[in-house]
Parts: sequence; C-alpha cells; structure tokens
Amino acid sequence: MTHFMNKKEDLVTEAIEGAIASAGGTLTRLDGFPHIRVVLRSDWSRSKVALISGGGSGHEPAHAGFVGKGMLTAAVCGDVFASPSVDAVLAAILAVTGPKGCLLIVKNYTGDRLNFGLAAERARAFGHKVDMVVVDDDVALPDVPQARGVAGTLFVHKIAGALAEQGANLETITKSAKRIISKSYSIGMSLDTCTVPGSPKENRIPSGKAELGLGIHGEAGFEQVAYEGASAAIAAVTDKLKTSMSDKPHVALVNNLGAGSVLEMSILTHELLKSAIGTNIKWLVGPASMMTSLDMHGFSVSLLEASEEDIKNLTAPVSTIGWPGCVTLEEQDIIPLPDGLAPIKAMPSQHEPTRAFLISCCETFIASEDDLNALDAKSGDGDTGSTLANASRALISAIDTLPLSDATQLYRAIGQELSQTMGGSSGVLLAIFFAAAGDASSSGMPMRDSLKAGLDRMQQIGGAKLGDRTMIDALAPALDALSDGLEAAATAARKGAAHTATLTRAQAGRAAYLNAKQLVGHVDPGAEAVARLFEFLAARRSQS
Amino acid sequence: MTHFMNKKEDLVTEAIEGAIASAGGTLTRLDGFPHIRVVLRSDWSRSKVALISGGGSGHEPAHAGFVGKGMLTAAVCGDVFASPSVDAVLAAILAVTGPKGCLLIVKNYTGDRLNFGLAAERARAFGHKVDMVVVDDDVALPDVPQARGVAGTLFVHKIAGALAEQGANLETITKSAKRIISKSYSIGMSLDTCTVPGSPKENRIPSGKAELGLGIHGEAGFEQVAYEGASAAIAAVTDKLKTSMSDKPHVALVNNLGAGSVLEMSILTHELLKSAIGTNIKWLVGPASMMTSLDMHGFSVSLLEASEEDIKNLTAPVSTIGWPGCVTLEEQDIIPLPDGLAPIKAMPSQHEPTRAFLISCCETFIASEDDLNALDAKSGDGDTGSTLANASRALISAIDTLPLSDATQLYRAIGQELSQTMGGSSGVLLAIFFAAAGDASSSGMPMRDSLKAGLDRMQQIGGAKLGDRTMIDALAPALDALSDGLEAAATAARKGAAHTATLTRAQAGRAAYLNAKQLVGHVDPGAEAVARLFEFLAARRSQS
Repeated sequence: MTHFMNKKEDLVTEAIEGAIASAGGTLTRLDGFPHIRVVLRSDWSRSKVALISGGGSGHEPAHAGFVGKGMLTAAVCGDVFASPSVDAVLAAILAVTGPKGCLLIVKNYTGDRLNFGLAAERARAFGHKVDMVVVDDDVALPDVPQARGVAGTLFVHKIAGALAEQGANLETITKSAKRIISKSYSIGMSLDTCTVPGSPKENRIPSGKAELGLGIHGEAGFEQVAYEGASAAIAAVTDKLKTSMSDKPHVALVNNLGAGSVLEMSILTHELLKSAIGTNIKWLVGPASMMTSLDMHGFSVSLLEASEEDIKNLTAPVSTIGWPGCVTLEEQDIIPLPDGLAPIKAMPSQHEPTRAFLISCCETFIASEDDLNALDAKSGDGDTGSTLANASRALISAIDTLPLSDATQLYRAIGQELSQTMGGSSGVLLAIFFAAAGDASSSGMPMRDSLKAGLDRMQQIGGAKLGDRTMIDALAPALDALSDGLEAAATAARKGAAHTATLTRAQAGRAAYLNAKQLVGHVDPGAEAVARLFEFLAARRSQS
Repeated sequence: MTHFMNKKEDLVTEAIEGAIASAGGTLTRLDGFPHIRVVLRSDWSRSKVALISGGGSGHEPAHAGFVGKGMLTAAVCGDVFASPSVDAVLAAILAVTGPKGCLLIVKNYTGDRLNFGLAAERARAFGHKVDMVVVDDDVALPDVPQARGVAGTLFVHKIAGALAEQGANLETITKSAKRIISKSYSIGMSLDTCTVPGSPKENRIPSGKAELGLGIHGEAGFEQVAYEGASAAIAAVTDKLKTSMSDKPHVALVNNLGAGSVLEMSILTHELLKSAIGTNIKWLVGPASMMTSLDMHGFSVSLLEASEEDIKNLTAPVSTIGWPGCVTLEEQDIIPLPDGLAPIKAMPSQHEPTRAFLISCCETFIASEDDLNALDAKSGDGDTGSTLANASRALISAIDTLPLSDATQLYRAIGQELSQTMGGSSGVLLAIFFAAAGDASSSGMPMRDSLKAGLDRMQQIGGAKLGDRTMIDALAPALDALSDGLEAAATAARKGAAHTATLTRAQAGRAAYLNAKQLVGHVDPGAEAVARLFEFLAARRSQS
C-alpha cells in the first residue's frame, strides 16, 4: 500500500469524517453511509437558494471543502473517480432545497451529467425548483464538442455561492453561473501520473517528459511534451490559454493537482505572473490544492475574465476549509537593506601590553597546531589545531587595526575578526563569546565577569553543558577559579581538560556521533587548547 | 529534472516572489537578493515587538507563509535545507526591530542556532533588545540532549504573534514562547523520502515500510517500521506522543510533510481523532501543509497542552497565506436521510389500449435484439439490442403495476422502471426522457409536445446534438413529423437513421472513440431502434 488509507471501501467515508472534523462545526453529513455520502452546511435553514455540487472523490478538497456559508450548500461524494448515484444526489437535493430552489453545479463528465440530471428530474417531480449547469472549462482538447469540467468549476462555486448568500433568486444565479462558465478556461500539466488507491501505478510519463492537457481522473493528457523547467511549463500552458483570452483583466486560479510541493507551486505562480499573459492577470486565487487528482504531481491554471462584480463575489468572505481566498495582485515596494550590515569597525588604537598579550596568546595556539590536530583526529576530523592556528595568524596580521586601548571595543572587534576568519561552528561560537563579553564589558563589568557573560551566552546559543566534552569543560572551571589567580585558573583548566578523557559520550559537536570506545582516554582538543592557554598565561605571569 | 523549478540557484528567490505575489499586498521583501532573502510584513511600523523566524528553505509555507499581521514580522530564508547567513538574519532584525525589541524564534538545528545567535549579538551591539527562543518539539529521539525543532514551531509563531499584536512586551512574549515550547511535542512519519532539487532521489524506504520519527531535512527517521495502513500509522505516532501528554486538553496540529494528498490527510486526521489520545484532543489545526520537507510523502502530528488563553491566541485572526486556522472539535448531529428517496409508486390502473400499445412496442424491440446487437458490434460493444430487449421484457413483466390510465403518471413510472432495469447511460437518459415528458404532460401538454420536452431535456443532460450519430438523429425528426401523422414520422425516422451511416465522426457515446473508417456505412443502432419502432407503429395504425 502506498497511501495513507485503510480499506479501499472505507476511503471516502473516512476522508469525509476527517474533513467534517477539521471544519470545526460548520459541516455535517446525511445519515446515509456508506452509499449516500452527502456533506452539508450545519447552519442551513433552506431560506436561500441551495447550491449542490459533487462528483467522484479523489479531488479533495473538492467538493466537501467548498461547502460552507458563502459557497456550496452540499457536496455529493462518489467513489474515487466515479459519479455518485442518482439516489445520493437526490438525497442532497431533498435535504437542502427550500422554496427558493436549488442549483446543481456539475462538471462535464457523462456519469455526473446523467446522475445529477436524473436526480434533478426526480426532485422536480416532488415540486422542487431545480436548475443545473454544466462546467466545461477545459481547453486541452480544442476539437471535442464537450470540454471537460476541471478547476474552473471553483469560480462557479464561489461566485454562485456569494450570490446565493446575498439572497439572489435561482434564475439570477443560474444565469450568472452560465456566464462564468462561458468565460472560464483551464489547462493542466503533470510530471507524473496519479496512483488510484488499490490499483497499480501507471508509469505512463517517461522521465524528462510532462503531460499537457490532462483531465483530473488519471486519463492521459492531450500530448506528452519535453519537460524543460518551470518557465517552459508555464509557457506551454499559457500558449493554450491565451487563444481563449480577451485583453480584459482576468483572475488566475493556480491549482495544485495533488503532490506538487508548496515550493514548486510558488515558483509556478511566479512564472505565470511574469509570463506572456501575466499583464492581463489582475487577481489571484491560490496557489493551493483545490481540484486535485489524488497525488498527481502537477498543476493547472484556470482563467476567468472577471468584472468588478465578479471580483466582489470572489473576494466575499466564506466559511469553508478549502477556499484559499482571492487577492488583488499588487506591485510591492521592495525595502532597502538596513544600514549596519557591514560591521562598524572601531577606530584602531594602541596599547602595547595588550598587543603583546594578544600576540603571545595567538602564538601559543600556533605552537600547538600539530598536537591539537593529532588529538582531534581521535574524535573528529583532525583540524582543530589548524583552525585555531589559522585564526590566530589572521588575528596577528590584523593586530594594528584593533582598538587595543578599549576593552569593550576590543572584545567586539575580536569577535568580528573571528567570525570572518575562523570557519565552522567554532568560529561562530567564539564570535558570540567575544560579542557577549563586549556587551557585558560595556555595562562596566570587570574582565572576569565579562568573560563569564560571554561563556553563558555561548552555552545558551550552542547548547553545550558542562560534561558534554567540549572546550567548556576547561573554560568554565578556569573562569570560576580566576578570582584566585591565574595559577588556580590554569590548574582548574587542566583538571577540566583531563576530565574530558573520561567522558564516554559527547553530547555536542561532531564527536557526538562517535561511540564510547572511540572517545575514552582522549582529551577533547578544544578543552586541551583552553588548558594550554591558561597554563601559558600562568607561566607568563610568574615570569614577569 | 523532476521538479517544477528552473535553475537550482534561483529556486528560493523565485518561490519567494511567488509567495509575495499570492499574499496580495501584505508581504514584501528586503532588497538583498540573491544572498539576503528576507520576507516581511508590508504594513510594519515597528510599534510592537517584532517576531522573526526562518531557517533553510524547503519547508514552505514556513516561514514566509506565516509572516503577516498577528503572526511573524519577518522570515529569513536560507538555501534549501541550509541555514541563512548571519548577515541575512541581522538584516531582518535591523529592518523590523523598534523600541519594543524583537524575538527570534529558531528551530533547534545547529546552523540556525549559531547564525541567529550571532546575528542577535550583532544587533545588541547596535542597542537593540533581542531575545531568542529555540524550539525543540521533536520526540522522535528520546535520548538526545537536543531535540529537533519541527512543526510545533507553528504553535510558537501563532501564540507569540497574537501576543505581539495585542501589544505585549518582549519579556512577556519570550516567557510565553518558552512555556509553549515546553508543552509542544511532535513526531512524523513518511512513506517515502523527499527529493532535494538537483540531487538524485535517495530510495531509502523500501515498499511496505514507513519511517517513523524523521526530521524535516531528509535525514533518516528514528526507525523503519512495517507500514500497515493509516490506522496503524496513527497508532505508531500516538504511542510516541502519549508518553509526553498530560490528561489535560490538547490542540493537535496535523501537518502535511509535502506530497500527501488532501484525501490521505483527511483520513489521517479522522484516525487521529478516534485514536487512543483522541479524547484529549479538543482543538485542531489543519490538516494542511505547514512545515513541509519539500515533496515528502508523509505527515506529522504536533500536540500542545493548551490553556484557554492559548486557544484565544491560536484562534485570533491573522493575515498570512499559510496559517489554516484553529478550530474547536465539535460532535456534529448527523442529519437523517430525507423522505422521498424510495420513489413513490403511482397506484396501478387499467387501460387496455395503452397496455396493448406498450406491449407491442416492447415486442418490437425484443424482435430486433439480434439485428441491433449486430449493428452495435460495428461501432460499439454489441449490446444495444440486448439492453433494449431486456428492458422491454422487464417492462412487460411490470405492465400490470403501471398507472396505465393516467398519461402523466405513466411517463414517470416508465422512467422509474427504466432507470432501475436498464443499465448504463442509455437507461439514465431514457429515464430522464420519460420523467421530463411526465412533467410536461402534468402541465397539460399533448403527447407530442410532452415527448419533445422529454427529448429537449435528454439532449440538455446528455449533450448530444442532431448529427452526433445517436438515437436522436431518428427521434428528433420523427417527433417533428408526428403532427403529419405516424407515416410521416416513420419516414422521417428512417431517413434520419439512414443519415447516421454517412456521419464519419460520432460526437457522443462510445462510438466517439472510433475513427471515420470504422463508422461509415453503418447505421447507429439507437437510431435504427427508433426507426423500427415508428415503422412498426405506422404499420399498426394502417392495419387498425
């Protein structure tokens, strides 16, 4: 089974139950399962003209998804791709039709025409006023006398629905529906066939091809064309549509046939609007799944030459789960990029002790390059030493551009420097460390507290905790011990680094993917680097 | 190429343009293409707390689809499945943050944490108030210290968005966001992997298996399980979720991971609501594509233990293209089937001449069975004769149950009889013919006009016109000539039938699929049957 379904015979009723639930109280159904599957408005009082549509299932959200205030009154659901029975349609008509009558909106497929048609006759024998319109918006097959009804049907549902909601009479609604049908044109394209539940997939469309001009029941398209990307796909579709178009303003309805991704549908919409017919498109419905063909990886475009009145009706509010709304296309002012993206470089300043201090720290890392690489090779990709050494070399080169005499500015400048010269996560994390230390320093914190603030922020963003086998296992105890002097800090850093060799599970960074055996006995290279730095600083202090 | 796209490098910017267009004026973007891809509200005045989210693309409608009044202020879009740059996030912050500050809502993936985190530091250096929350709602991997952020992120977007819209301050919003994160749980299941544009498809999931506990970047799921239908799929998912659930009321968010059909998503929703945890689910978001993984054929369920205040915020109105709304689940009263589905049988009545007339008409068809079958074999499936003969035999058997003395009732009764005993389109069409004739007769029309009214309706529903090579080619001229007597009608019917043999293209019925060579020289069997009937009636009249 390649679908999320249970038994084939329960498919439609289960989907209807799900749709009714997701409507949150606006929908209900007739008590006719399994044979009579009619979804209707739960707030219907028969005081207005009723609108009924339906047909085979497999086109969801059509048609139950368009039942609700301002759109359809009821939907009659057949089996997948099969017309509902005359009895089911009749049940719908009898359930919702009041004195103002009922309009059946039928897509042009033989089974639907006949079954809805006969049900209408039966309902008339009960004295009901019933009209029927047949939607034939498909322009795929130019020579057939009976074009199919596809996604353009949505225009009819929505406009007739708005008129009915306003209290229009049956004659007015039927006349409008016929006018909308005569001005609606649709065509679809697909990269793959749909899979009918319970049936094997028909691999009809070879790789590199697309079908143009398909129906919504898995039937073959009018032609297979070379597929050359979204732009060419839209060009092929609009070529067919433009022969039916006037130069008046149109609404475009962009329909996902089932399994196109949201990303693809947005790209197709963009292409449509900048296509040859784009300038005549003033309003847009979708992109959305509206009249699907199960899981077909395709789309269709429907056009309607719309009057201001039509637009008023297309944009009127509805309570349905399927209608995505109709918007006016508007050219948007693009917002200029804000100032401040290029980091403000602090003015360089001189402070010889700081300069010497920084350079010697950097040299410590450069001298440890090979050792740290070797250590990293035990638990990572062997580049911790080189990453630190290269960043150190870059910092030394830039030393005279730094604001050495201003601690706050210096932290931030080092952070910026590292974010640009040191790759990977560690570069970003150290940049965050120094930026946050700079913030703390700017509010007057002493050095030790500023560095601890940097550590806090780095942990918050990076997510590593003490004991996760990272540089933090050396840095955190070192900063804690710093109030007792550099010697104590160095001792604490070394103890913390040594402890990482006993941690059998890395919780962050690349070593998290290794198992205990691969890790045990090896000090984490980041922690080792921190320990070496504090040991160097302690030794330097004792010499001075 | 298996996607509706153009060049891979233009994928994200084109999709953004499409999304902005389909928002109809509520969205715009920063002028930073191609590197800085930030979508933002076009009506933003910086007077409230700004909310920024984002991450890699491929999750559409997330995140641009959730930008709008009442939800996000801006979305930062990376390449497919890749974090946006620090500069891009910073651009978004600087573009929208006012004096009330800004909250970054980040899904728990290392790249996003780091890049959003560093951008926040940079923005703070400009004096902006910036908070950041990290969403980690995935419960697929119980032992990892850092759960992933998936579709539960939507709860945070929506509730924080409602609070921001109401004018709450940054501290309040951040605190609420953290509370929502701590009470959100998600897990997903897929029947197939997604296809990253430009990369080959990884066929990782064998037929008959599903992946449970997957992320949204194509990474493998926690485990592969046997796939045994929608009900078992929901059971597997809810088993994982219920360990995190309290017995308080929850809202469920049903997310399409990309290529599930609308039909399947409704079935899954139905299964979820009747599952073991269904009674604790009081509100529903979706089913809809919200946090997708390109074209993945899968779904995810997210749960939030929600307070009344949370529900107020989840149901507050928004202006976005992606948010499907949140509804209260309500048990619906199912509506009883209407009366009248079982056709009202008219009381039988006797009228010997009508009885004899009907029987002899039926016998004409029965006598023609083999001839008509042979004729139909030339252009159809060879059963026209048997279909007519069987219906005629059934009508003869039922003759004494018919209201023979009342023309109006008799038309309708014959129509009902035929719709039950005569299969296929022709049965429905003849049922419509007689039902409409009955309607006409009831308004006082004479027989010939009633039959013509039946013909009109049959043509309207069936769609066949004169010259389409159907029974109408004999019936229509016969009825027209009937005012000149039965002889004239028979002559006209025969002439019409003979004409069908010259029609090289059938426009309706099964013969429409045949070509000219296969048709020419053969009379349409339906037209032949009509001609034979009128010839019989003319002969009968002249004998009497």
